[in-house]
Amino acid sequence: MAMVCLSDFEAYAKKYLPKIAWDYFAAGADDCNTRDENILAYKRIRFRPRMLRDVSMMDIRTKILGTEISFPVGIAPTGFHQLAWPDGEKSTARAAKAMNTCYIASTYSTCTLEEISAAAPGGLRWFQLYIHRSRAASQKLVQRAEALGFQGLVLTTDVPYTGKRRDDIRNGFRLPPHMKVKNLERDFEVCKMSLLDPSITWNDIYWLRSLTHLPIIIKGILTKEDAELAVRHGVQGIIVSNHGGRQLDEGPATVDALVEVVEAVQGRVEVYLDGGIRKGSDVLKALALGAKCVFIGRPALWGLAYKGEEGLQDVLRILQDEFRLSMALAG
Amino acid sequence: MAMVCLSDFEAYAKKYLPKIAWDYFAAGADDCNTRDENILAYKRIRFRPRMLRDVSMMDIRTKILGTEISFPVGIAPTGFHQLAWPDGEKSTARAAKAMNTCYIASTYSTCTLEEISAAAPGGLRWFQLYIHRSRAASQKLVQRAEALGFQGLVLTTDVPYTGKRRDDIRNGFRLPPHMKVKNLERDFEVCKMSLLDPSITWNDIYWLRSLTHLPIIIKGILTKEDAELAVRHGVQGIIVSNHGGRQLDEGPATVDALVEVVEAVQGRVEVYLDGGIRKGSDVLKALALGAKCVFIGRPALWGLAYKGEEGLQDVLRILQDEFRLSMALAG
Amino acid sequence: MAMVCLSDFEAYAKKYLPKIAWDYFAAGADDCNTRDENILAYKRIRFRPRMLRDVSMMDIRTKILGTEISFPVGIAPTGFHQLAWPDGEKSTARAAKAMNTCYIASTYSTCTLEEISAAAPGGLRWFQLYIHRSRAASQKLVQRAEALGFQGLVLTTDVPYTGKRRDDIRNGFRLPPHMKVKNLERDFEVCKMSLLDPSITWNDIYWLRSLTHLPIIIKGILTKEDAELAVRHGVQGIIVSNHGGRQLDEGPATVDALVEVVEAVQGRVEVYLDGGIRKGSDVLKALALGAKCVFIGRPALWGLAYKGEEGLQDVLRILQDEFRLSMALAG
Amino acid sequence: MAMVCLSDFEAYAKKYLPKIAWDYFAAGADDCNTRDENILAYKRIRFRPRMLRDVSMMDIRTKILGTEISFPVGIAPTGFHQLAWPDGEKSTARAAKAMNTCYIASTYSTCTLEEISAAAPGGLRWFQLYIHRSRAASQKLVQRAEALGFQGLVLTTDVPYTGKRRDDIRNGFRLPPHMKVKNLERDFEVCKMSLLDPSITWNDIYWLRSLTHLPIIIKGILTKEDAELAVRHGVQGIIVSNHGGRQLDEGPATVDALVEVVEAVQGRVEVYLDGGIRKGSDVLKALALGAKCVFIGRPALWGLAYKGEEGLQDVLRILQDEFRLSMALAG
Repeated sequence: MAMVCLSDFEAYAKKYLPKIAWDYFAAGADDCNTRDENILAYKRIRFRPRMLRDVSMMDIRTKILGTEISFPVGIAPTGFHQLAWPDGEKSTARAAKAMNTCYIASTYSTCTLEEISAAAPGGLRWFQLYIHRSRAASQKLVQRAEALGFQGLVLTTDVPYTGKRRDDIRNGFRLPPHMKVKNLERDFEVCKMSLLDPSITWNDIYWLRSLTHLPIIIKGILTKEDAELAVRHGVQGIIVSNHGGRQLDEGPATVDALVEVVEAVQGRVEVYLDGGIRKGSDVLKALALGAKCVFIGRPALWGLAYKGEEGLQDVLRILQDEFRLSMALAG
Repeated sequence: MAMVCLSDFEAYAKKYLPKIAWDYFAAGADDCNTRDENILAYKRIRFRPRMLRDVSMMDIRTKILGTEISFPVGIAPTGFHQLAWPDGEKSTARAAKAMNTCYIASTYSTCTLEEISAAAPGGLRWFQLYIHRSRAASQKLVQRAEALGFQGLVLTTDVPYTGKRRDDIRNGFRLPPHMKVKNLERDFEVCKMSLLDPSITWNDIYWLRSLTHLPIIIKGILTKEDAELAVRHGVQGIIVSNHGGRQLDEGPATVDALVEVVEAVQGRVEVYLDGGIRKGSDVLKALALGAKCVFIGRPALWGLAYKGEEGLQDVLRILQDEFRLSMALAG
Repeated sequence: MAMVCLSDFEAYAKKYLPKIAWDYFAAGADDCNTRDENILAYKRIRFRPRMLRDVSMMDIRTKILGTEISFPVGIAPTGFHQLAWPDGEKSTARAAKAMNTCYIASTYSTCTLEEISAAAPGGLRWFQLYIHRSRAASQKLVQRAEALGFQGLVLTTDVPYTGKRRDDIRNGFRLPPHMKVKNLERDFEVCKMSLLDPSITWNDIYWLRSLTHLPIIIKGILTKEDAELAVRHGVQGIIVSNHGGRQLDEGPATVDALVEVVEAVQGRVEVYLDGGIRKGSDVLKALALGAKCVFIGRPALWGLAYKGEEGLQDVLRILQDEFRLSMALAG
Repeated sequence: MAMVCLSDFEAYAKKYLPKIAWDYFAAGADDCNTRDENILAYKRIRFRPRMLRDVSMMDIRTKILGTEISFPVGIAPTGFHQLAWPDGEKSTARAAKAMNTCYIASTYSTCTLEEISAAAPGGLRWFQLYIHRSRAASQKLVQRAEALGFQGLVLTTDVPYTGKRRDDIRNGFRLPPHMKVKNLERDFEVCKMSLLDPSITWNDIYWLRSLTHLPIIIKGILTKEDAELAVRHGVQGIIVSNHGGRQLDEGPATVDALVEVVEAVQGRVEVYLDGGIRKGSDVLKALALGAKCVFIGRPALWGLAYKGEEGLQDVLRILQDEFRLSMALAG
């Protein structure tokens, strides 16, 4: 079977992953409207292609927070990569490094931060953080990440409680016994995520600031009001995200929300996006609307499910080729 | 089978209820466009979710006409509960009381008002009234309800004649011989409902006012013009309703009509809504658009069909959990 | 099988008519977009239902060009009724008279005008005219109709050539040998309709005017510009029509075109409509938008196909009941 | 099987062509959204039909760049006609001449320009040009075309690189060994088209101008900005085209882009269109929006696949009849 576009990887993963793992990765909240809207919204955005521009030399490299990456697509934080491939996040780290892009490692990794670092020394990585009821636990994670050379701290803000993902409830989803959320000290009860602190507010940005010298990127912003608040609270970046449609159903598609966030921010901090990227032309649209870089979630997992780090590289390479071609064709 | 969301109850009821009963509950007028629009309209309304607000403590209680209920979802008046569960409206009354919410008992109950009252003493209940050609009969019903401690009188205005529900006609729908519309003195011919008075006008509100000290809530309002008239005629509440799409097909969805009614009323009386509520986030949308409380019709019947009062409590509990989660995730 | 709504008759006709006849009646031009739009357009029009109006007495009679009919639905001109029922247009005439409404007999009837008149003496009938290359033939038809007591002359303007109906071409549609277009003197080649004159213009209205004292109703108008021209040329009525979507595909739905025609005409002549009427509420919508009366085409043929004049009466009676109910429920 | 409309030819070609050839002709870029939008966009454009205009005599001839054609539909440049019919472009040339219309021969023909010319001497033909990395090769082609009596030079601008057509990649599409891109000197690697020059700019129009006295028509323009540039660079005509949706997916449908191009050009040069023409009424819509003539791509190939030059004539004749009928019915 030729792997020509990202949906080929999706079809492969759906076929070969255990149903409980596929369902977990595919899940959206409630009726999955926002999950699907993330994709549909791109179809409504039309290019105005320009002709006869010299597109023989195109530079698709970019910088995020000052560090160069080979093209404006990174790996979004998603949990439990061992569900997709035995080596889990270690493979993800290797693929991201090989493709010279940024990997945002999730708190809910099935490898430790140390294992991830050791797997691909020198790769560009950010660490995604939830704030737990135990602030000491969160503080320890931040300091471990900083010590290990992670170069950014991504604070997820849209999970005061876990969204309602019907299939996970029906499946009684939990990790198989041989997998652990290794970054946390004890076994972790997934479906409740009862360790997360629903009382966090904007002031907790200051607390986080006091713990680390790393740039703070805030993830989950969908409105201009929150974008303004984020800038005022001193973050270095914003990821427009609705958690892949897994949290609040029937909010906006991320590419739609991007427009108002970019307008509010007015270049004061970098704005990124995740959600719904399935083709190189989606990347181009997001960039044309003001994103500095996009991140892929589920497609990265499909790549892992296909062939581990090699499969993820295939996914990234396809996106890269498609992105470059779209740029050329759009002039 | 896990009951995870309201459509699980719907699927159950469709599978296990006699076809004639399922068809009666599911029926919409004519092509059922308005019935379906009630649901689709919610999908078109998008949240603007806000982040980093302390959502650790949320109070979802509300008051309707001064009485506290545990969350802003009550039971809309629907007929013939014995078609769904042997104990009929007695089970409904018990479930509503157990969940500390309001139950609007229908004139066309298959239990008497006295049985309903006795089944769940002290529960918050309103009585739904049609005005019959025999005003004496209607008067007697009002006075019985008031004497039994019902705390509100809901006047249905959208049934001068019964809507055309094709499946009911094809099925020759009528109550099985062992069920009766017990609140009315003689057997009751359903499909014609020829006892209802099509000549009632706004002046009949004054007549109703003269019969009772109970607050009058008017049900079936869909326009700002009628909302204004309702306020001027001294009602205490308005239920924006299209009778679940069972009367005039191709009028507005209730959540769409809600906007203009709320704007016209300007807080002078409380505004409620029924029709199309299927998820906790639907409740939140209706409240965000100005409803004080919503009422569920068909989902309550599905709960009854599943396990009587226990099933109805399950339905209410799911809505409550989803509503609370939506509030947290929307900030 | 219970005949509850018009689509029941449609299903019956589709099942029992010879395919070549069903295809001929069902045909639309090209991709049939306009044929289907005629129906879909009604779904986009929403009522604003009003409550608590005395609807115990409703008068649904109306007058068209001064003559009372029992309700505002007549029979549009369609050809070849013997394809649907052996007695053909004689049955149509009887049903229309029994229901006290107007029947517009087509030039392309399979009964003579004399037979139609004799079948239902005293019924209100208009005669539909195409202008043929032989003006003498047309003149003769007009004079026969007037002499027989037809009370209006309906000039069809949208058939300079016959629309392209793919199924008719595939089927090689032509009348069975035992049927004739009896009003014309010789056999008639249907698919070419080469006898019609494509050179007619507005001046031919004056010619027609000179032939008869009957009121002239112009059929096929879809724009305000043509509506204005029609009024200026002295017609007595306008039928907004796109020939059931059988002529030019991808023009407007008739109920959409009605709005601009009514506005242009400003009450100077009566405006009617045909196309897409399938429910009583469609009739109410057309009247609310300014039509004085509507005419049904295919549904009349389905009624004939079901049970001849009795079946057509059933269709009319259902529309009448639905129309009355819609009026009551819309207030 | 009766060939009544263009989709009959499409069905035939899909059934009888080898899958690899059908896929190549049918292919769109990426998700094929633009390919399909080209067609759907016509459905959204509605006629305003006018009545009672003398349509007995209609002249559907037109002139393009001063030369008369029998009706405003020509043959767009498409590659590899031998995949559809053994005689390839020779048949195309014969059919175009027989129907007295314009055929734009593609650089990627499977017959030489000389063979095409000899097949139908005196026919109106334009030559479609890609600019290759080897300018000498391009120059030679231009001069051959001019010498052979081609009357226009169509410069394709939307292929700096070939669009991503998934099925062609899956099929490993390449020409069968016995077919050659004969106009180019060596064998030609289709999927890469690596001979094309992605560095061309507007200045290359001047270079082209210096090579030939033929009028230059620029193909692939989709925006008013590029239309203005085209006029300023002295072209004689513009073909609004998105390469049948085969290059950049999710740009505009051509009939939508036509509007802004026509407005920008203001009659200074002739504007044509290709993409999505499937019915005579589509032609009429494009002309009503300002196109001087349209060109058909895939439908011409379906005609060839059906019966070579005879099949293509059938396609053109159907379009001609439908176009004439649409004009008559639209008044």
